[in-house]
Amino acid sequence: MRAVVLRGGRLVVDDVGEPQPGPGQALIETIACGICGSDLHCARHARSFTESAAATGMTIFAFDPDRDLVMGHEFSGRVLEIRADGGSGVPAPGGRRLVPGDLVVAHPMVRSADGLHSVGYSNDHPGGYAERFVVQASGLLPIPDGVDATVAALTEPLAVGLHAVNSSSAVEAGHAVVVGCGPVGLAVIAALAGRGVPLIVAADLSPTRRDLAARLGADVVVDPRSEPAIDAWRSTGGRGPAVVFEAVGVPGMLRATMRALPSRSELVVVGLCMEPDVIEPTVAISRQLTVRFVLGWTAEEFADSLAGIGSGRFDAAALVTGRVSLDGTPEAFTALAAPDAHVKVLVQPATA
Amino acid sequence: MRAVVLRGGRLVVDDVGEPQPGPGQALIETIACGICGSDLHCARHARSFTESAAATGMTIFAFDPDRDLVMGHEFSGRVLEIRADGGSGVPAPGGRRLVPGDLVVAHPMVRSADGLHSVGYSNDHPGGYAERFVVQASGLLPIPDGVDATVAALTEPLAVGLHAVNSSSAVEAGHAVVVGCGPVGLAVIAALAGRGVPLIVAADLSPTRRDLAARLGADVVVDPRSEPAIDAWRSTGGRGPAVVFEAVGVPGMLRATMRALPSRSELVVVGLCMEPDVIEPTVAISRQLTVRFVLGWTAEEFADSLAGIGSGRFDAAALVTGRVSLDGTPEAFTALAAPDAHVKVLVQPATA
Repeated sequence: MRAVVLRGGRLVVDDVGEPQPGPGQALIETIACGICGSDLHCARHARSFTESAAATGMTIFAFDPDRDLVMGHEFSGRVLEIRADGGSGVPAPGGRRLVPGDLVVAHPMVRSADGLHSVGYSNDHPGGYAERFVVQASGLLPIPDGVDATVAALTEPLAVGLHAVNSSSAVEAGHAVVVGCGPVGLAVIAALAGRGVPLIVAADLSPTRRDLAARLGADVVVDPRSEPAIDAWRSTGGRGPAVVFEAVGVPGMLRATMRALPSRSELVVVGLCMEPDVIEPTVAISRQLTVRFVLGWTAEEFADSLAGIGSGRFDAAALVTGRVSLDGTPEAFTALAAPDAHVKVLVQPATA
Repeated sequence: MRAVVLRGGRLVVDDVGEPQPGPGQALIETIACGICGSDLHCARHARSFTESAAATGMTIFAFDPDRDLVMGHEFSGRVLEIRADGGSGVPAPGGRRLVPGDLVVAHPMVRSADGLHSVGYSNDHPGGYAERFVVQASGLLPIPDGVDATVAALTEPLAVGLHAVNSSSAVEAGHAVVVGCGPVGLAVIAALAGRGVPLIVAADLSPTRRDLAARLGADVVVDPRSEPAIDAWRSTGGRGPAVVFEAVGVPGMLRATMRALPSRSELVVVGLCMEPDVIEPTVAISRQLTVRFVLGWTAEEFADSLAGIGSGRFDAAALVTGRVSLDGTPEAFTALAAPDAHVKVLVQPATA
């Protein structure tokens, strides 16, 4: 099959072997696969990405950077084959059994004899930047009728935002400040709006992303060069401890954000900074900050994300700023390096 | 009056001006004052201590390092004078008005026209390393009958431990791991035991401190060079997320502790590291850690600490490893630099 292959530090479009589903696994024809910020990072720094992940316990992201890698873990598709597990078949959500032809999203996971693997960050389990992929059938969810199957590919990144919000006290506090409106920050904003948080303040350097933040539900949106996010929150009546999401994920942001926080604030770290970073314990201690580091989602949050896309509670379509074929994917990676040009680009292998 | 003065980077015993209580303030004759780790740090690095504190928002610790400073904020004493505030007098706990002669502990705070000041870290408000000190009368608490008034000076450091425990989920989790058994770590252990936490695991390099940890209520005590604290917790049946107190407070401890934590653990940072410190966000994110930075105590916790000392719930006397006069205080500061020699040394100005 055709796939976008990370090979020797470059993305090339090439033929790769057909993925073969094992017992309890499903073969899916890719409809759409979102390009994630982690993929951008991995494409540029594959070796340090996987080594740093493995060294810090994220062994699910362990792969050999000297071998071919087909990335992509934010996907939707059409069921081609489901292999029964021990003859009992696959229990499908809603009572109905999934069958070939069904439109689905899926947890980007596959289980083999040596454990659980991340589809899209494994040399042996190609991801969604390819015509077909294999996942564990137990992680399949049917796309609700009437939902654009390409937009449903945003289930995974929106679930990340939902998990961050659910891990925070934003709902109880009735407000949130989101620092950084890249794909992760925007997913957090969509989730905050979907959960009914009444005051959402967002900050980003990019006017495009600020517009999207407003469209997704941010009530106040600022350029942090003119007005720091916390100041904007205060000037809209914010008082006492703040609930703040750090969604930039570059070195120095934690330190700078902590310095701006009111006493007893909660800082939710959802931006993934891959390098060691410096903080000032005296700042954090003097303000008695709580810092919550979050990652991923639960199966319930993944399902809730898809349901919210289906009901319109999460405006996933607003995040899509581009669509490319497999052939157009390497160029899209280059374009995404300029943060103002795009939010979420969907790779759609069936398009030319 | 006689006082231990930090002057030009050295501790000297000298005569200083008599402190004068203003309206709503009390003049107290010092019975005992504990030497705190912060005081040791301040004595060696006064300028960087106050500059770093001020720069990071702890303005209550702002003083001029080129002027004389009389430290000491863990004190007990005898009321010499209480100046009424606007003629209404001072409401005393328990209904009875405090009068001269009463034995008390006190919040180390004083309010003047320009705001709240920390007694013991202010050039103008000498602390307990002196014959007398002035505090806000509203922060006075009478020492219960039958309680050794010198031991009552441990109310403040034990309240710090109690606040750390109350800020954590140790009681709900039913366990805690305490890394570092200096005065702060031991106060945490005393508070954990006082709150009835059934499994307390503690680690320290010093055999003296390990013995004290056991005496104060730690169920398992290890030398981290032979067995890391988290391993010891696991081998006593610990499973799932851990509740861990970092009470060492030197650069590198946060990073090392985070690396040892199970997924979804809670790290309570109670050791005060005065320098910028490096963490690995990928470690914290991959394990979805919650990090709580804590400081100080509430008025309720201060009162509970004194009550616990009174009832025997907190074994404060166990922490006292030395007693010195004002003249012996500079030498005690030197002795305390060797972590195995002492835990808490009380300065008792009335002794020769």
